[in-house]
Amino acid sequence: VTDVPIASPDNPLVKQVVRLHEVRHRRAEARFIAEGRRTIEAFLANGWKAEHLIVRSGEEPPSAWPREQLRMVSERVAAKMSQASTASGYLGVFSIPPVPALQPASGGLVLAGITDPGNLGTLIRSAAAFGVAHLALLGGADPFSHKVVQASAGALASVPISPLPEESGPELLAGGAPLCALVVSGGLDPARLPRQRRWLVVGSEAHGLRPDWLAGCPERVTLPMQGPVDSLNAAIAGSIACYLLGTPNRASGAVGESGR
Amino acid sequence: VTDVPIASPDNPLVKQVVRLHEVRHRRAEARFIAEGRRTIEAFLANGWKAEHLIVRSGEEPPSAWPREQLRMVSERVAAKMSQASTASGYLGVFSIPPVPALQPASGGLVLAGITDPGNLGTLIRSAAAFGVAHLALLGGADPFSHKVVQASAGALASVPISPLPEESGPELLAGGAPLCALVVSGGLDPARLPRQRRWLVVGSEAHGLRPDWLAGCPERVTLPMQGPVDSLNAAIAGSIACYLLGTPNRASGAVGESGR
Repeated sequence: VTDVPIASPDNPLVKQVVRLHEVRHRRAEARFIAEGRRTIEAFLANGWKAEHLIVRSGEEPPSAWPREQLRMVSERVAAKMSQASTASGYLGVFSIPPVPALQPASGGLVLAGITDPGNLGTLIRSAAAFGVAHLALLGGADPFSHKVVQASAGALASVPISPLPEESGPELLAGGAPLCALVVSGGLDPARLPRQRRWLVVGSEAHGLRPDWLAGCPERVTLPMQGPVDSLNAAIAGSIACYLLGTPNRASGAVGESGR
Repeated sequence: VTDVPIASPDNPLVKQVVRLHEVRHRRAEARFIAEGRRTIEAFLANGWKAEHLIVRSGEEPPSAWPREQLRMVSERVAAKMSQASTASGYLGVFSIPPVPALQPASGGLVLAGITDPGNLGTLIRSAAAFGVAHLALLGGADPFSHKVVQASAGALASVPISPLPEESGPELLAGGAPLCALVVSGGLDPARLPRQRRWLVVGSEAHGLRPDWLAGCPERVTLPMQGPVDSLNAAIAGSIACYLLGTPNRASGAVGESGR
Protein backbone atom coordinates (compact mmCIF):
# COMPACT_ATOMS: atom_id res chain seq x y z
CA VAL A 1 0.00 0.00 0.00
CA THR A 2 3.04 2.18 -0.26
CA ASP A 3 2.55 2.27 -4.04
CA VAL A 4 1.68 5.47 -5.80
CA PRO A 5 -2.11 5.52 -6.36
CA ILE A 6 -3.25 4.64 -9.88
CA ALA A 7 -4.26 7.94 -11.43
CA SER A 8 -4.52 7.16 -15.13
CA PRO A 9 -7.87 6.20 -16.62
CA ASP A 10 -5.87 4.21 -19.19
CA ASN A 11 -4.41 1.90 -16.58
CA PRO A 12 -5.38 -1.71 -17.47
CA LEU A 13 -6.95 -2.33 -14.05
CA VAL A 14 -9.15 0.75 -14.44
CA LYS A 15 -10.25 -0.44 -17.86
CA GLN A 16 -10.95 -3.93 -16.54
CA VAL A 17 -13.12 -2.63 -13.71
CA VAL A 18 -15.09 -0.28 -15.94
CA ARG A 19 -15.67 -3.15 -18.38
CA LEU A 20 -17.31 -5.09 -15.54
CA HIS A 21 -20.09 -2.50 -15.42
CA GLU A 22 -21.55 -4.44 -18.36
CA VAL A 23 -23.27 -7.77 -17.90
CA ARG A 24 -21.65 -9.34 -20.99
CA HIS A 25 -18.19 -8.69 -19.63
CA ARG A 26 -19.13 -9.96 -16.17
CA ARG A 27 -20.35 -13.15 -17.78
CA ALA A 28 -17.39 -13.55 -20.13
CA GLU A 29 -14.82 -12.92 -17.40
CA ALA A 30 -16.74 -14.45 -14.47
CA ARG A 31 -15.96 -11.43 -12.35
CA PHE A 32 -18.04 -8.78 -10.66
CA ILE A 33 -17.69 -5.71 -8.50
CA ALA A 34 -18.77 -5.16 -4.90
CA GLU A 35 -18.73 -1.61 -3.58
CA GLY A 36 -18.47 -0.37 -0.02
CA ARG A 37 -16.52 -1.66 2.96
CA ARG A 38 -19.38 -3.59 4.56
CA THR A 39 -20.39 -5.28 1.34
CA ILE A 40 -16.80 -6.24 0.51
CA GLU A 41 -16.30 -7.59 4.02
CA ALA A 42 -19.42 -9.76 3.70
CA PHE A 43 -17.83 -11.46 0.67
CA LEU A 44 -14.41 -11.83 2.34
CA ALA A 45 -15.99 -13.20 5.53
CA ASN A 46 -17.86 -15.80 3.47
CA GLY A 47 -14.70 -17.03 1.79
CA TRP A 48 -15.06 -15.29 -1.58
CA LYS A 49 -11.80 -14.64 -3.36
CA ALA A 50 -11.02 -11.00 -4.07
CA GLU A 51 -8.93 -10.43 -7.16
CA HIS A 52 -8.50 -6.75 -6.38
CA LEU A 53 -9.39 -4.60 -3.39
CA ILE A 54 -9.36 -1.05 -4.62
CA VAL A 55 -9.24 1.82 -2.15
CA ARG A 56 -9.43 5.53 -2.84
CA SER A 57 -6.37 7.51 -1.85
CA GLY A 58 -6.98 9.01 1.59
CA GLU A 59 -9.12 6.11 2.85
CA GLU A 60 -7.64 3.64 5.32
CA PRO A 61 -8.11 0.03 4.19
CA PRO A 62 -9.05 -2.30 7.05
CA SER A 63 -5.94 -4.02 8.41
CA ALA A 64 -7.49 -7.48 7.94
CA TRP A 65 -7.75 -7.06 4.17
CA PRO A 66 -5.18 -9.11 2.23
CA ARG A 67 -2.32 -6.78 1.27
CA GLU A 68 -1.52 -8.57 -2.02
CA GLN A 69 -4.86 -7.61 -3.54
CA LEU A 70 -4.86 -3.99 -2.37
CA ARG A 71 -4.50 -1.19 -4.91
CA MET A 72 -4.80 2.49 -4.09
CA VAL A 73 -6.36 4.75 -6.72
CA SER A 74 -6.82 8.47 -7.16
CA GLU A 75 -10.15 10.10 -6.40
CA ARG A 76 -10.85 10.56 -10.09
CA VAL A 77 -10.14 6.92 -10.88
CA ALA A 78 -12.24 5.78 -7.90
CA ALA A 79 -15.16 7.84 -9.22
CA LYS A 80 -14.72 6.41 -12.72
CA MET A 81 -14.76 2.83 -11.41
CA SER A 82 -17.79 3.32 -9.18
CA GLN A 83 -21.42 2.78 -10.21
CA ALA A 84 -22.76 4.19 -6.95
CA SER A 85 -24.40 7.61 -6.87
CA THR A 86 -21.83 8.47 -4.20
CA ALA A 87 -18.63 6.45 -4.48
CA SER A 88 -17.70 4.90 -1.13
CA GLY A 89 -14.01 4.75 -1.99
CA TYR A 90 -13.93 0.95 -1.55
CA LEU A 91 -14.39 -1.48 -4.41
CA GLY A 92 -13.67 -5.19 -4.66
CA VAL A 93 -13.35 -7.28 -7.80
CA PHE A 94 -14.40 -10.85 -7.07
CA SER A 95 -14.56 -14.05 -9.13
CA ILE A 96 -18.02 -15.41 -9.85
CA PRO A 97 -17.91 -19.01 -8.65
CA PRO A 98 -19.17 -21.90 -10.80
CA VAL A 99 -22.96 -22.23 -10.60
CA PRO A 100 -23.69 -24.46 -7.59
CA ALA A 101 -25.59 -27.64 -8.47
CA LEU A 102 -29.24 -27.65 -7.42
CA GLN A 103 -30.12 -30.30 -4.84
CA PRO A 104 -33.88 -30.75 -5.33
CA ALA A 105 -34.20 -32.09 -1.79
CA SER A 106 -32.76 -28.97 -0.16
CA GLY A 107 -35.70 -26.73 -0.93
CA GLY A 108 -35.20 -23.02 -1.31
CA LEU A 109 -36.48 -20.10 -3.31
CA VAL A 110 -37.06 -19.89 -7.07
CA LEU A 111 -37.22 -16.33 -8.37
CA ALA A 112 -38.68 -16.18 -11.85
CA GLY A 113 -38.32 -13.08 -13.97
CA ILE A 114 -37.51 -10.58 -11.20
CA THR A 115 -36.18 -7.86 -13.47
CA ASP A 116 -36.03 -5.01 -10.97
CA PRO A 117 -32.52 -5.15 -9.50
CA GLY A 118 -33.58 -3.51 -6.23
CA ASN A 119 -36.29 -6.12 -5.72
CA LEU A 120 -33.94 -8.97 -6.62
CA GLY A 121 -31.23 -7.76 -4.23
CA THR A 122 -33.78 -7.24 -1.47
CA LEU A 123 -35.17 -10.76 -1.96
CA ILE A 124 -31.66 -12.21 -1.80
CA ARG A 125 -31.08 -10.30 1.43
CA SER A 126 -34.32 -11.62 2.93
CA ALA A 127 -33.56 -15.17 1.77
CA ALA A 128 -30.21 -15.07 3.54
CA ALA A 129 -31.76 -13.64 6.69
CA PHE A 130 -34.39 -16.38 6.80
CA GLY A 131 -31.97 -19.24 6.19
CA VAL A 132 -33.16 -20.16 2.68
CA ALA A 133 -30.96 -23.09 1.58
CA HIS A 134 -30.62 -22.25 -2.10
CA LEU A 135 -31.72 -19.61 -4.57
CA ALA A 136 -32.55 -20.51 -8.17
CA LEU A 137 -32.92 -17.60 -10.57
CA LEU A 138 -34.86 -17.93 -13.80
CA GLY A 139 -34.06 -14.96 -15.98
CA GLY A 140 -34.54 -11.55 -14.41
CA ALA A 141 -31.78 -9.14 -13.44
CA ASP A 142 -28.14 -10.24 -13.34
CA PRO A 143 -27.46 -11.07 -9.67
CA PHE A 144 -23.91 -9.76 -10.04
CA SER A 145 -24.98 -6.34 -11.32
CA HIS A 146 -24.19 -3.30 -9.20
CA LYS A 147 -27.72 -2.61 -8.00
CA VAL A 148 -28.42 -6.21 -7.04
CA VAL A 149 -25.15 -6.60 -5.14
CA GLN A 150 -25.77 -3.36 -3.29
CA ALA A 151 -29.46 -4.02 -2.51
CA SER A 152 -28.49 -7.44 -1.18
CA ALA A 153 -26.18 -5.63 1.29
CA GLY A 154 -23.64 -8.40 0.87
CA ALA A 155 -26.15 -11.21 1.47
CA LEU A 156 -25.33 -12.47 -2.03
CA ALA A 157 -22.12 -13.70 -0.39
CA SER A 158 -23.83 -16.08 1.99
CA VAL A 159 -26.51 -17.95 0.07
CA PRO A 160 -25.90 -20.39 -2.83
CA ILE A 161 -27.32 -18.87 -6.00
CA SER A 162 -27.88 -20.73 -9.24
CA PRO A 163 -28.79 -18.62 -12.24
CA LEU A 164 -30.61 -20.97 -14.61
CA PRO A 165 -31.44 -20.61 -18.28
CA GLU A 166 -34.68 -18.69 -18.54
CA GLU A 167 -36.39 -21.55 -20.38
CA SER A 168 -35.72 -24.06 -17.57
CA GLY A 169 -38.85 -25.82 -16.35
CA PRO A 170 -39.89 -27.13 -12.94
CA GLU A 171 -38.67 -30.67 -13.82
CA LEU A 172 -35.25 -29.40 -12.72
CA LEU A 173 -36.46 -29.77 -9.15
CA ALA A 174 -38.43 -32.99 -9.66
CA GLY A 175 -38.36 -35.62 -6.95
CA GLY A 176 -37.19 -33.21 -4.28
CA ALA A 177 -38.90 -30.88 -1.85
CA PRO A 178 -42.42 -29.91 -3.02
CA LEU A 179 -42.86 -26.81 -5.14
CA CYS A 180 -45.12 -24.08 -3.81
CA ALA A 181 -46.16 -21.11 -5.96
CA LEU A 182 -46.85 -17.70 -4.46
CA VAL A 183 -49.95 -16.45 -6.30
CA VAL A 184 -51.97 -13.25 -5.91
CA SER A 185 -55.25 -15.04 -5.24
CA GLY A 186 -56.75 -18.44 -4.61
CA GLY A 187 -53.85 -20.00 -2.69
CA LEU A 188 -53.72 -21.16 0.93
CA ASP A 189 -52.64 -18.88 3.77
CA PRO A 190 -48.93 -19.82 4.12
CA ALA A 191 -49.34 -19.89 7.89
CA ARG A 192 -51.58 -22.96 7.44
CA LEU A 193 -49.09 -25.12 5.56
CA PRO A 194 -47.10 -27.67 7.53
CA ARG A 195 -43.49 -26.61 8.16
CA GLN A 196 -41.21 -28.60 5.89
CA ARG A 197 -38.58 -28.06 3.25
CA ARG A 198 -40.09 -26.78 0.05
CA TRP A 199 -39.27 -24.68 -2.99
CA LEU A 200 -41.15 -21.41 -2.86
CA VAL A 201 -41.62 -20.14 -6.42
CA VAL A 202 -42.07 -16.37 -6.82
CA GLY A 203 -42.75 -14.59 -10.11
CA SER A 204 -42.68 -10.95 -11.05
CA GLU A 205 -45.31 -8.47 -9.95
CA ALA A 206 -46.17 -7.55 -13.53
CA HIS A 207 -46.30 -11.00 -15.12
CA GLY A 208 -46.74 -13.55 -12.35
CA LEU A 209 -45.51 -17.08 -13.01
CA ARG A 210 -45.13 -18.79 -16.35
CA PRO A 211 -47.75 -21.53 -16.98
CA ASP A 212 -45.20 -24.38 -16.94
CA TRP A 213 -43.97 -23.35 -13.48
CA LEU A 214 -47.47 -22.76 -12.18
CA ALA A 215 -48.52 -26.21 -13.41
CA GLY A 216 -45.44 -27.71 -11.78
CA CYS A 217 -46.34 -26.40 -8.31
CA PRO A 218 -48.71 -28.76 -6.42
CA GLU A 219 -49.00 -26.20 -3.61
CA ARG A 220 -50.13 -22.58 -3.94
CA VAL A 221 -50.08 -19.88 -1.31
CA THR A 222 -51.58 -16.40 -1.21
CA LEU A 223 -50.95 -13.77 1.45
CA PRO A 224 -54.26 -12.85 3.07
CA MET A 225 -54.87 -9.17 2.48
CA GLN A 226 -57.15 -6.78 4.30
CA GLY A 227 -56.75 -3.40 2.76
CA PRO A 228 -57.93 -1.96 -0.51
CA VAL A 229 -54.61 -2.60 -2.29
CA ASP A 230 -54.74 -5.97 -3.96
CA SER A 231 -51.09 -6.47 -4.64
CA LEU A 232 -47.82 -6.04 -2.86
CA ASN A 233 -44.36 -5.20 -4.08
CA ALA A 234 -42.78 -8.49 -5.30
CA ALA A 235 -39.88 -8.21 -2.86
CA ILE A 236 -42.28 -7.69 0.05
CA ALA A 237 -44.64 -10.52 -0.90
CA GLY A 238 -41.77 -12.94 -1.57
CA SER A 239 -40.03 -12.02 1.68
CA ILE A 240 -43.17 -12.45 3.77
CA ALA A 241 -43.90 -15.83 2.18
CA CYS A 242 -40.28 -16.91 2.81
CA TYR A 243 -40.59 -15.80 6.40
CA LEU A 244 -43.85 -17.65 6.96
CA LEU A 245 -42.87 -20.83 5.17
CA GLY A 246 -39.30 -20.65 6.45
CA THR A 247 -38.39 -23.78 8.29
CA PRO A 248 -39.79 -25.84 11.17
CA ASN A 249 -40.20 -24.30 14.62
CA ARG A 250 -40.21 -20.71 13.62
CA ALA A 251 -42.44 -17.76 12.90
CA SER A 252 -46.09 -18.70 12.84
CA GLY A 253 -45.16 -22.36 13.40
CA ALA A 254 -44.15 -21.34 16.89
CA VAL A 255 -47.59 -19.98 17.69
CA GLY A 256 -48.88 -23.48 18.19
CA GLU A 257 -46.44 -24.12 21.01
CA SER A 258 -47.37 -23.32 24.55
CA GLY A 259 -46.25 -19.85 25.72
CA ARG A 260 -42.70 -18.64 26.10
CA VAL B 1 -59.94 17.69 -25.11
CA THR B 2 -60.38 19.26 -28.47
CA ASP B 3 -57.92 21.96 -27.40
CA VAL B 4 -54.59 22.31 -29.09
CA PRO B 5 -52.00 20.57 -26.88
CA ILE B 6 -49.85 22.83 -24.73
CA ALA B 7 -46.48 22.93 -26.44
CA SER B 8 -44.73 25.86 -24.81
CA PRO B 9 -42.45 25.28 -21.83
CA ASP B 10 -43.35 28.81 -20.75
CA ASN B 11 -47.02 27.97 -20.31
CA PRO B 12 -48.01 28.71 -16.68
CA LEU B 13 -49.34 25.18 -16.13
CA VAL B 14 -46.03 23.69 -17.27
CA LYS B 15 -44.16 25.97 -14.91
CA GLN B 16 -46.49 25.10 -12.05
CA VAL B 17 -46.02 21.37 -12.55
CA VAL B 18 -42.25 21.61 -12.82
CA ARG B 19 -42.19 23.69 -9.63
CA LEU B 20 -43.91 20.80 -7.83
CA HIS B 21 -40.83 18.65 -8.39
CA GLU B 22 -39.45 20.46 -5.36
CA VAL B 23 -40.59 19.66 -1.85
CA ARG B 24 -40.71 23.31 -0.75
CA HIS B 25 -43.19 24.15 -3.51
CA ARG B 26 -45.27 21.03 -2.79
CA ARG B 27 -45.50 22.15 0.83
CA ALA B 28 -46.18 25.80 0.06
CA GLU B 29 -48.89 25.02 -2.50
CA ALA B 30 -50.25 21.82 -0.90
CA ARG B 31 -50.16 20.08 -4.25
CA PHE B 32 -48.31 17.07 -5.61
CA ILE B 33 -47.95 15.05 -8.78
CA ALA B 34 -48.98 11.47 -9.46
CA GLU B 35 -47.70 9.86 -12.65
CA GLY B 36 -49.10 6.96 -14.61
CA ARG B 37 -52.67 5.93 -15.35
CA ARG B 38 -52.97 3.31 -12.62
CA THR B 39 -51.54 5.58 -9.95
CA ILE B 40 -53.78 8.48 -10.96
CA GLU B 41 -56.81 6.19 -10.97
CA ALA B 42 -56.00 5.01 -7.44
CA PHE B 43 -56.26 8.60 -6.26
CA LEU B 44 -59.44 9.32 -8.24
CA ALA B 45 -61.07 6.10 -7.01
CA ASN B 46 -60.31 7.09 -3.42
CA GLY B 47 -61.99 10.46 -3.79
CA TRP B 48 -58.90 12.64 -4.19
CA LYS B 49 -59.48 15.86 -6.09
CA ALA B 50 -57.45 16.26 -9.27
CA GLU B 51 -56.68 19.87 -10.16
CA HIS B 52 -55.24 18.87 -13.53
CA LEU B 53 -55.12 15.62 -15.45
CA ILE B 54 -52.41 16.04 -18.03
CA VAL B 55 -52.19 13.67 -20.97
CA ARG B 56 -49.56 13.49 -23.67
CA SER B 57 -50.79 14.13 -27.16
CA GLY B 58 -51.49 10.80 -28.84
CA GLU B 59 -52.57 9.03 -25.64
CA GLU B 60 -56.25 8.32 -25.06
CA PRO B 61 -57.43 9.56 -21.65
CA PRO B 62 -59.80 7.11 -19.93
CA SER B 63 -63.40 8.12 -20.58
CA ALA B 64 -64.20 8.16 -16.86
CA TRP B 65 -61.72 10.95 -16.18
CA PRO B 66 -63.37 14.32 -15.50
CA ARG B 67 -63.18 16.37 -18.71
CA GLU B 68 -62.88 19.74 -16.96
CA GLN B 69 -59.50 18.86 -15.52
CA LEU B 70 -58.05 17.36 -18.70
CA ARG B 71 -55.23 19.12 -20.52
CA MET B 72 -53.39 17.67 -23.50
CA VAL B 73 -49.69 18.50 -23.82
CA SER B 74 -47.02 17.96 -26.44
CA GLU B 75 -44.52 15.15 -26.10
CA ARG B 76 -41.77 17.61 -25.21
CA VAL B 77 -43.86 19.27 -22.50
CA ALA B 78 -44.91 15.85 -21.13
CA ALA B 79 -41.26 14.86 -20.86
CA LYS B 80 -40.40 18.14 -19.14
CA MET B 81 -43.17 17.66 -16.57
CA SER B 82 -42.30 14.05 -15.80
CA GLN B 83 -39.89 12.86 -13.13
CA ALA B 84 -40.07 9.24 -14.28
CA SER B 85 -37.16 7.66 -16.12
CA THR B 86 -39.69 6.87 -18.85
CA ALA B 87 -42.61 9.29 -18.94
CA SER B 88 -45.92 7.43 -18.99
CA GLY B 89 -47.75 10.27 -20.70
CA TYR B 90 -50.23 10.61 -17.82
CA LEU B 91 -49.76 13.03 -14.96
CA GLY B 92 -52.18 14.25 -12.32
CA VAL B 93 -51.85 17.29 -10.08
CA PHE B 94 -53.69 16.69 -6.82
CA SER B 95 -54.28 18.75 -3.69
CA ILE B 96 -52.61 17.55 -0.52
CA PRO B 97 -55.44 17.25 2.03
CA PRO B 98 -55.16 18.71 5.53
CA VAL B 99 -53.17 16.42 7.83
CA PRO B 100 -55.70 13.97 9.31
CA ALA B 101 -55.91 14.10 13.11
CA LEU B 102 -54.32 11.16 14.89
CA GLN B 103 -56.70 9.02 16.88
CA PRO B 104 -54.46 7.35 19.47
CA ALA B 105 -56.99 4.54 19.90
CA SER B 106 -56.96 3.53 16.22
CA GLY B 107 -53.47 2.07 16.23
CA GLY B 108 -51.42 2.05 13.08
CA LEU B 109 -47.87 2.43 11.92
CA VAL B 110 -45.32 5.07 12.94
CA LEU B 111 -42.46 5.43 10.48
CA ALA B 112 -39.56 7.35 11.99
CA GLY B 113 -36.80 8.71 9.80
CA ILE B 114 -37.38 6.55 6.71
CA THR B 115 -35.36 8.67 4.32
CA ASP B 116 -35.19 6.28 1.38
CA PRO B 117 -38.20 7.15 -0.79
CA GLY B 118 -38.43 3.65 -2.28
CA ASN B 119 -38.59 2.13 1.19
CA LEU B 120 -41.14 4.69 2.38
CA GLY B 121 -43.38 4.13 -0.64
CA THR B 122 -43.11 0.37 -0.29
CA LEU B 123 -44.03 0.55 3.41
CA ILE B 124 -47.07 2.70 2.58
CA ARG B 125 -48.10 0.12 -0.02
CA SER B 126 -47.74 -2.72 2.51
CA ALA B 127 -49.59 -0.77 5.18
CA ALA B 128 -52.54 -0.25 2.85
CA ALA B 129 -52.53 -3.92 1.82
CA PHE B 130 -52.58 -5.07 5.45
CA GLY B 131 -55.32 -2.71 6.54
CA VAL B 132 -53.23 -0.43 8.74
CA ALA B 133 -55.61 2.19 10.11
CA HIS B 134 -53.30 5.21 10.11
CA LEU B 135 -49.74 6.11 9.18
CA ALA B 136 -47.78 8.65 11.20
CA LEU B 137 -44.54 9.88 9.63
CA LEU B 138 -41.78 11.38 11.72
CA GLY B 139 -39.32 13.09 9.41
CA GLY B 140 -37.93 10.99 6.59
CA ALA B 141 -38.75 11.40 2.90
CA ASP B 142 -41.63 13.61 1.74
CA PRO B 143 -44.55 11.21 1.18
CA PHE B 144 -45.70 13.36 -1.75
CA SER B 145 -42.38 13.17 -3.59
CA HIS B 146 -42.27 11.44 -6.95
CA LYS B 147 -40.44 8.31 -5.83
CA VAL B 148 -42.63 7.74 -2.79
CA VAL B 149 -45.87 8.19 -4.73
CA GLN B 150 -44.66 5.79 -7.42
CA ALA B 151 -43.25 3.16 -5.03
CA SER B 152 -46.54 3.24 -3.13
CA ALA B 153 -48.26 2.29 -6.42
CA GLY B 154 -51.14 4.56 -5.52
CA ALA B 155 -51.59 3.11 -2.02
CA LEU B 156 -50.86 6.58 -0.67
CA ALA B 157 -54.40 7.34 -1.85
CA SER B 158 -56.07 4.86 0.46
CA VAL B 159 -54.49 5.14 3.89
CA PRO B 160 -54.65 8.21 6.17
CA ILE B 161 -51.16 9.67 6.47
CA SER B 162 -50.11 12.24 9.03
CA PRO B 163 -46.68 13.77 8.55
CA LEU B 164 -45.63 15.00 11.99
CA PRO B 165 -42.90 17.39 13.01
CA GLU B 166 -39.69 15.40 13.31
CA GLU B 167 -39.29 16.35 16.95
CA SER B 168 -42.69 14.94 17.97
CA GLY B 169 -42.52 12.45 20.81
CA PRO B 170 -44.54 9.35 21.66
CA GLU B 171 -46.82 11.33 24.00
CA LEU B 172 -48.75 12.22 20.85
CA LEU B 173 -50.23 8.75 21.01
CA ALA B 174 -50.60 8.54 24.77
CA GLY B 175 -53.67 6.86 26.21
CA GLY B 176 -54.45 4.99 23.02
CA ALA B 177 -53.44 1.66 21.54
CA PRO B 178 -50.13 0.42 22.99
CA LEU B 179 -46.91 1.33 21.24
CA CYS B 180 -44.70 -1.48 20.00
CA ALA B 181 -41.18 -0.86 18.69
CA LEU B 182 -39.63 -3.03 16.00
CA VAL B 183 -36.04 -3.55 17.15
CA VAL B 184 -33.20 -5.57 15.61
CA SER B 185 -32.63 -7.70 18.69
CA GLY B 186 -34.03 -8.50 22.10
CA GLY B 187 -37.74 -8.10 21.30
CA LEU B 188 -40.48 -10.71 21.34
CA ASP B 189 -41.40 -12.75 18.27
CA PRO B 190 -44.35 -10.74 16.89
CA ALA B 191 -46.24 -13.98 16.31
CA ARG B 192 -46.39 -14.40 20.12
CA LEU B 193 -48.10 -11.10 20.87
CA PRO B 194 -51.85 -11.07 21.37
CA ARG B 195 -53.75 -9.71 18.37
CA GLN B 196 -55.02 -6.24 19.21
CA ARG B 197 -54.84 -2.70 17.93
CA ARG B 198 -51.40 -1.21 18.49
CA TRP B 199 -49.01 1.34 17.04
CA LEU B 200 -46.07 -0.41 15.45
CA VAL B 201 -43.09 1.96 15.52
CA VAL B 202 -40.43 1.39 12.85
CA GLY B 203 -37.16 3.32 12.55
CA SER B 204 -34.58 3.50 9.82
CA GLU B 205 -32.20 0.68 9.06
CA ALA B 206 -29.18 2.88 9.62
CA HIS B 207 -30.17 4.65 12.81
CA GLY B 208 -32.93 2.64 14.45
CA LEU B 209 -35.33 4.47 16.76
CA ARG B 210 -34.69 7.65 18.69
CA PRO B 211 -34.35 7.09 22.47
CA ASP B 212 -37.54 9.00 23.32
CA TRP B 213 -39.62 6.79 21.03
CA LEU B 214 -37.90 3.62 22.18
CA ALA B 215 -38.56 4.58 25.80
CA GLY B 216 -42.19 5.31 24.93
CA CYS B 217 -42.81 1.80 23.60
CA PRO B 218 -43.80 -0.67 26.33
CA GLU B 219 -43.70 -3.52 23.79
CA ARG B 220 -40.77 -4.51 21.60
CA VAL B 221 -40.69 -7.04 18.81
CA THR B 222 -37.83 -8.56 16.82
CA LEU B 223 -38.19 -10.77 13.77
CA PRO B 224 -36.55 -14.13 14.51
CA MET B 225 -33.72 -14.63 12.03
CA GLN B 226 -31.99 -17.81 10.99
CA GLY B 227 -29.43 -16.90 8.43
CA PRO B 228 -26.08 -15.19 8.69
CA VAL B 229 -27.49 -11.78 7.80
CA ASP B 230 -28.41 -9.93 10.94
CA SER B 231 -30.54 -7.21 9.47
CA LEU B 232 -33.23 -6.82 6.87
CA ASN B 233 -34.12 -3.99 4.56
CA ALA B 234 -36.29 -1.55 6.57
CA ALA B 235 -39.23 -1.88 4.19
CA ILE B 236 -39.11 -5.68 4.43
CA ALA B 237 -38.79 -5.80 8.21
CA GLY B 238 -41.53 -3.21 8.72
CA SER B 239 -43.85 -4.95 6.28
CA ILE B 240 -43.38 -8.37 7.86
CA ALA B 241 -44.00 -6.95 11.33
CA CYS B 242 -47.14 -5.18 10.05
CA TYR B 243 -48.32 -8.40 8.51
CA LEU B 244 -47.74 -10.43 11.67
CA LEU B 245 -49.15 -7.88 14.09
CA GLY B 246 -51.88 -6.85 11.70
CA THR B 247 -55.23 -7.19 13.31
CA PRO B 248 -57.18 -9.95 15.06
CA ASN B 249 -57.99 -13.18 13.27
CA ARG B 250 -55.39 -12.97 10.60
CA ALA B 251 -51.98 -14.25 9.57
CA SER B 252 -50.31 -16.14 12.37
CA GLY B 253 -53.26 -15.46 14.63
CA ALA B 254 -55.22 -17.81 12.41
CA VAL B 255 -52.86 -20.70 13.10
CA GLY B 256 -54.39 -21.16 16.49
CA GLU B 257 -57.81 -21.81 15.01
CA SER B 258 -58.86 -25.30 14.07
CA GLY B 259 -58.30 -26.17 10.38
CA ARG B 260 -59.86 -24.42 7.41
